Formats: sequence, C-alpha cells, structure tokens
Amino acid sequence: MAQITIAGAGLVGCLLGVVLARRGHRVTIFERRPDMRSANISAGRSINLALSDRGLQALSIAGLAEELRAIAIPMSGRIMHDTSGSTHYQPYGREGQAINSVSRGELNKTLLTAAEQAGVEIVFSARCTDVHPATATATFELENGDSRTVEADILFGADGAYSAVRERLMKTDRFDYSQSYLEHGYKELHIPPSADGGFLLDKHALHIWPRKSYMMIALPNIDGSFTCTLFFAHNGSPSFAELRSDADVQSFFDQQFPDAAALMPTLLEDFRTNPESSLVTIRCSPWTFAGRTALIGDAAHAIVPFYGQGMNCGFEDVRVLVDCLDVTGEDWPTALSLYERYRKPAGNAIADLAVENFKEMRDKVADERFLKRKSIEAWVYQNYPDRFVPLYTLVTFSPDVPYDEAQRIGREQDVIMEDLLDHPDVRADWTTDAAQSVIRKRIESLPTLNIRPLSPKNNLV
Amino acid sequence: MAQITIAGAGLVGCLLGVVLARRGHRVTIFERRPDMRSANISAGRSINLALSDRGLQALSIAGLAEELRAIAIPMSGRIMHDTSGSTHYQPYGREGQAINSVSRGELNKTLLTAAEQAGVEIVFSARCTDVHPATATATFELENGDSRTVEADILFGADGAYSAVRERLMKTDRFDYSQSYLEHGYKELHIPPSADGGFLLDKHALHIWPRKSYMMIALPNIDGSFTCTLFFAHNGSPSFAELRSDADVQSFFDQQFPDAAALMPTLLEDFRTNPESSLVTIRCSPWTFAGRTALIGDAAHAIVPFYGQGMNCGFEDVRVLVDCLDVTGEDWPTALSLYERYRKPAGNAIADLAVENFKEMRDKVADERFLKRKSIEAWVYQNYPDRFVPLYTLVTFSPDVPYDEAQRIGREQDVIMEDLLDHPDVRADWTTDAAQSVIRKRIESLPTLNIRPLSPKNNLV
Repeated sequence: MAQITIAGAGLVGCLLGVVLARRGHRVTIFERRPDMRSANISAGRSINLALSDRGLQALSIAGLAEELRAIAIPMSGRIMHDTSGSTHYQPYGREGQAINSVSRGELNKTLLTAAEQAGVEIVFSARCTDVHPATATATFELENGDSRTVEADILFGADGAYSAVRERLMKTDRFDYSQSYLEHGYKELHIPPSADGGFLLDKHALHIWPRKSYMMIALPNIDGSFTCTLFFAHNGSPSFAELRSDADVQSFFDQQFPDAAALMPTLLEDFRTNPESSLVTIRCSPWTFAGRTALIGDAAHAIVPFYGQGMNCGFEDVRVLVDCLDVTGEDWPTALSLYERYRKPAGNAIADLAVENFKEMRDKVADERFLKRKSIEAWVYQNYPDRFVPLYTLVTFSPDVPYDEAQRIGREQDVIMEDLLDHPDVRADWTTDAAQSVIRKRIESLPTLNIRPLSPKNNLV
Repeated sequence: MAQITIAGAGLVGCLLGVVLARRGHRVTIFERRPDMRSANISAGRSINLALSDRGLQALSIAGLAEELRAIAIPMSGRIMHDTSGSTHYQPYGREGQAINSVSRGELNKTLLTAAEQAGVEIVFSARCTDVHPATATATFELENGDSRTVEADILFGADGAYSAVRERLMKTDRFDYSQSYLEHGYKELHIPPSADGGFLLDKHALHIWPRKSYMMIALPNIDGSFTCTLFFAHNGSPSFAELRSDADVQSFFDQQFPDAAALMPTLLEDFRTNPESSLVTIRCSPWTFAGRTALIGDAAHAIVPFYGQGMNCGFEDVRVLVDCLDVTGEDWPTALSLYERYRKPAGNAIADLAVENFKEMRDKVADERFLKRKSIEAWVYQNYPDRFVPLYTLVTFSPDVPYDEAQRIGREQDVIMEDLLDHPDVRADWTTDAAQSVIRKRIESLPTLNIRPLSPKNNLV
C-alpha cells in the first residue's frame, strides 16, 4: 500500500483518488479552492462539458458511469444555425451514439463525494507552494496560514493547466515545455429555460452558429437553459476588442446570431460581466520524475476545447494508469514510465486535433464539400466498418483507440477522401452507382484497420 | 533623449548599450555577475565563439569591428578528422571568406569598456528581482543587499537564455513560450599550445571529428591552444552516462578521436571537472510589451550552437533595431514593433537551421553524396551567383539576407540539388560535360534570387 498525494481535486484528481483508494492506497488530495459543495464558487473555466465514451469508460472503472449518465443530456448531433435562422442537423455517429452535456460543477461535486466515500482525505483551501519531485514531497499553505509538508511515496500533479507541480518540474534539468495561445478567446453567455421550464432549442444536439472566422455554440443544461460560448478573436476585425458598447454587442448579435439573440434576455449584462478568457495549448516532457512524481490531466496536456476531449482525455489518463499498475503488479516507477510512454503521444495528438477541429466547427461545417464528405464517410463506415472509421467516430466513440492512432488514421483518410471528392463521378453525384463503384474500389483496396492498443494491458489480452 | 535600462551586460546588452548611448540616450546596464574585467569568472557557456559577417556588420555600427578582428583567428573552412587521423578540408566559402574564432571573455571585456566609454553606466552584481513591463520598471538586488527600482522610458531584457525579464513577461496574458532540449549535451575540453607556443592543429580551420550520432569540434585560441567541445548524448549508448571511469573516457577517446586524444594531456581531469551542459532552444512571443519593454538576443531566441550564429543573431538584432529607430525617427513604440516584426521570423529560422546543422556537422560532412553536393553547389554559385547562393553562404557570409529568407531559399535548393544528385549523369561524374549541362539547364531555369530586406531601412533605400 502506497501513500499518495494528489495536488488538485478537480475532475481528474478526484477520479484518480477514487481508483487509487479503491486499490487500497492511502490517498490525500490537496485542493487550492474551498469545497465547492458548500462554498458558492465557480467550478472552473466552463459551465458545461461534453462527456463522451472515453470519459465514461474511465468512469466505469470507478463504478461512476451510470450515476453520471443520470445527470447528463445526450446530444446525438450538431445543429448548425445560419444567419437567417435556418438550421441543418448532422448526426455525430450512428443511431444511439451521443456525447453528453454535463455540468462541470455537478460532475465535480459527485466525484468529490465519491472520493471521500472511497476513503480519500481531501484538504481544501490548500495552496501548493513547493514541491520536491525526487522525494514526492509537497508543501501546502493551509487556510489558517499554516504550512503543511507531506512526503509521500507518489505525488500526482492533477492541478490543471496552470499546475504548480509542473511549474516546479520546469526547474529540473532539461524539461521541455511549451504554452501556445490561440488568437481567439471565449466568453460564456446564457439562454434561459422557457416560461414553463422547457428548452428553447432542441436539447438533444450541440448547437453551432459557424461564421468562418468565429463561432458560437450552445450546450443544454438539465434546468432547461443553454450555455452559449462565443469563440471570437481577441483583437482585429471582427473581435471582442471591437464590441465596445452595449449597442455594438446587440447589433453584432442581431446580425450574426439573430435566432439566438432573440432567446438571450441577459445578453448585454452577460457580455459585460463574464470574462473574456484565453485558449491555450500546453505541452511538456517528461511527465514523470524519478518514478515518484507524475503529471496527469490538464497539468500534463492542456488543450483547447474544440474536440470536447479535455476532460475525457484526463479521465483516460487515469484508465491507462490503472492498466499500467495492473500489468506491472504495482511497480510504481515502471508503471509511471509505461503510463508516460502510452499517454504522451496520445496527449500530443489530441492537442493537435483539438486545434484543427476549431477550423472545422467554425468554417467547414457550413461548407457543401465538407457536408458531402461527411455523408460519404458515414456510408463508407456503414459498408466497411473494418476498413474505414471516420475520425470523429475514432476520437469520440472509440474508447479503445489511442488519440495518436486516430490522428494517424485520420490523416490517411484525409488524402483518400479529398481524392475521391475530386473524382468527376463523385463530384457530380456521389449516390450514383458509377460514383459508388469508384468509392468502393478505393476503400476495398485499403487494408483492415490495424490499431495500436490504448494501454499495455490491451497488449496482453 | 530616452532613459534606457538594459538587463544584462553580456555581448548583446553591451553592444546595445554602446549604440544607444552613441545616439544620445541615457543608458544604464544592470548585470547579475561581477565585473569580469576584475573578477576571475567564467564568461558564460562557451570559451570561444565564431564571429561571422553578420556580427561584424553589427559591430561596425559601433565602430568596433576592426578592434575585434584583431583578437580573432580567421577560420576559412572545416577540417574533418576520421578515426584513422586522416583529414579532409572543406572551405566555408570563397577565397578570403572566413569565420572568426574569438574568446567570449575578451570580446565581452572589450564591449564592456566600449560601453563605458560611450557613457553607459554599468551596475554589476545586480540581480533582477522584479519587472513591470508596462512601465519599463525593473528592480535589482544590489551587491550590498539593497534593492534599487528604476523606471525608464524603455527596458531591454538582454539577460540571456534564462532571462529574468522574459520570466516576468511569461506572466502577462497570452504569452507564447517554448523551451526544448536536445538529447545531446556538451563538455568543453582542451588542447594546449605546443612547447614553443605554436598551434598543434591547423589554426585557420574549425576542426570536426564527425561520428554520426555525436561529434567533437575544436576552435583555435590566440594563445596557441584549442578549445574542444564534445557534443554527445546525455543518455543511451554511446553517451556521457556510459563514460563513468577515467579508463572509459581514455579508451573512448583513443578509439574515436585518436589524433586529438594524443594532444590532450589534461583530458581526464578536464572531463571530470568540466560540466556536462545542456542544449536548449527557446522561443517566445511577443518580444515587446506596451511599446516600452523588449527582449533581445538569447533572451528572445536562445538557439543551439551548430550554425555558430547565436551571438551573430543577437548582434544583428541590435543592427535591425537601430534601423527601426532611424526609419521611425525614434518613435519607440513603432520602432519596437517593427523590430519584432523583422526579427521574430529571423530568430525562428536560425533556431531551426541551427538544430538541422547539427545533423550536417556530426553525420553528413563525412558522407560522400554530401561532399559531392557541396562541390556542385560551389561550382553553381561561381557560375550563377545571382541565381544560386549556397545556404551556408547565405547564413554566414550574407549579412543583408534575413535568416528566414536563407531558410526558405535553402529549402528550395534542397529539392533542386537532391534531384540533380539523383540524375544518372550527375551520379556517374558531375564534372563531365553531360552532367554539367544537366545542372546548367536546371539552374538557368531558376529566377534571379529575390530576397526580402533585412530591415525596414533596406526597404526604403
């Protein structure tokens, strides 16, 4: 049994605490903020998140998947809104496949309670002030001003994009690090429930208002409201910097998002009050130090939100770590090194994919060629599921496929599909026999998909 | 007249101080270390450096080029040493073109004195502890323990790869940053002068012992000695980690560098005593803040040493900054913004080129195809100097060509030369009429080189 310190009681830190405590380890989590179950504080950067199969798969290890499905709203596809208010629906996957809108706060509260029930000690309002990675020792400043220094067998930094544990690792020799910001930021806005408590937009979809250089999205909440997020350039034209007055904001929304603006009575106040936040990608290496300290979740790989995978990727880190502990018989240094070997390429890949998907969401989803490609891909997937699985499906609905494999396969498919779309028969009408024979021939020439396993455990079965 | 603070009295900080003081500004430099002209301290990471045309061009603005040539040893080419001790000479450029081996310490001392003579105040043993970039304010802890806070009109961070000014800029919103280490590190070693004070190797060359995955180089010093640098993997096989005992070191050198080892009486002691240092590339953005604070030299773009351009690039930053001040009539915010616009792509390019040149130096210089390509390039350059200038010449001997232009042109040439080398006639013997006609035809199809100017000043003349 190991003594384990986790910095950060966010989503990933709590799930990690649950699974390690259930394995018999003595786990203490230190959290910078007060207990969100009693204090009225914001849960973090976004109000709701899309929980998908990877996240659910990891939660199921802790027996939490069903409990969390109960507070989630399944979204089976995207609904695109144009400036006239017309909409177009595009399913995310097959019948029955969906991503799930969940409240970050509710999810975190559930996980905090699950951690305590599993025997984890959680110390709130404890700020990490120092770390000695070689000895898994961390010092925290407590609420009463006292300092507490804890030496453990293993120290995890699950303390998010601005991780204090990672900041200390940066001072070790030859630590690679990068932080890279998008030119776009975001602001959260609000569509309330209808007078009778119903939903003012279709609740079983993620709504997108794609506008080429920017976009707004909306996800449903269980109270009937929607949380909208405007992703918009910080500066330039158009940008947040240009929307100076209430009149600027109202006129911009009336022109660009008229159907949404009509449902946003608090638009001007929300726009003034809510922060304009930044979007960063953070990469670093190594994630582990001396077999005793490790980074996990956003602390290891903060990504932009455009594939809805930040939380899912963090939960998957926990799932793979558990597999590494299993296959090594809890030889921690070996397990941590295996964990890093499997997860680092995955983290890098989803970081890239997330940046690339912004372009897809804000621009390409409104593009005819792109929509045609999506239709062809769905048809090909249905007919050749062992040869062709669309990238979105690999990322979102294939929890045993590593992100880096999804990225690799996606790039190969990109070439094939763009080629096919250039073929005159396919260009004319892809549903004709002639066109489909061209498509079939190309797909039948592909080998069966051969995918590297997600974790060393899959390797052994 | 502006009040200017410069953090760092290294090579770039001093040159910047000289040129700004000569323009009539009131300049104070704060330097963390004591005065190297009186204290016996190491001058920094490497004992000698290769000063090339870009650096000389920038030094000439301060009237220092000739003074520094006097303490430099020109190296007109590379001498490659194989494991049998056989050597092969390869000129760097045309007759009369050379890079110059200079002592970092002597160069820095000369620049310190030049700065003082130009009226710069230099405060030594002053560690930067805080910076307010928006107000060009910096705080320094002085030798006596006192703290001194200086608000200036303009603050420059010329404080090197581990810049304190940049560290403070990292805390501003949306600051992009990356630090990336090579798997290789380096250790400096020593070949003394001969008994009569002469040079034990040819002094007019840079010596290279290329060994594919690693290499050693040697540069001459004015006292007749050579400083050798072993670039070697930190870990793995072979690596520094493997050379544990004196016997390991001696046997490795005897096998791999027999001719050099015979000239290194203090090899074992040097190897034990001298540090195993890391090689890092640092990039960041933005380099300027609020029109009042700017990074320059390694603080803005630390690069690996394999193109011999780190100091030259930093000096060129100063040259371009001066041009920006000229064309804007010393409108500082505009000048700094122009400086960043011209220098950031250049800094990125030389960072890439420097990493790529490691591969060339340690591996390709011993490769037959590579040597043939070098010969063909020299011949093409001689015959078509307006259409084809070799990459090494663009970087090293073309001080008006931006590094990013050199990189772009180098990539185009790469394709052309590799194509030509694959041609059967060229492969058989490139000096035949048939082969040269193939080469001529290809080169004559190229447009005349069209190169973006180095600075906004060149744009206007």
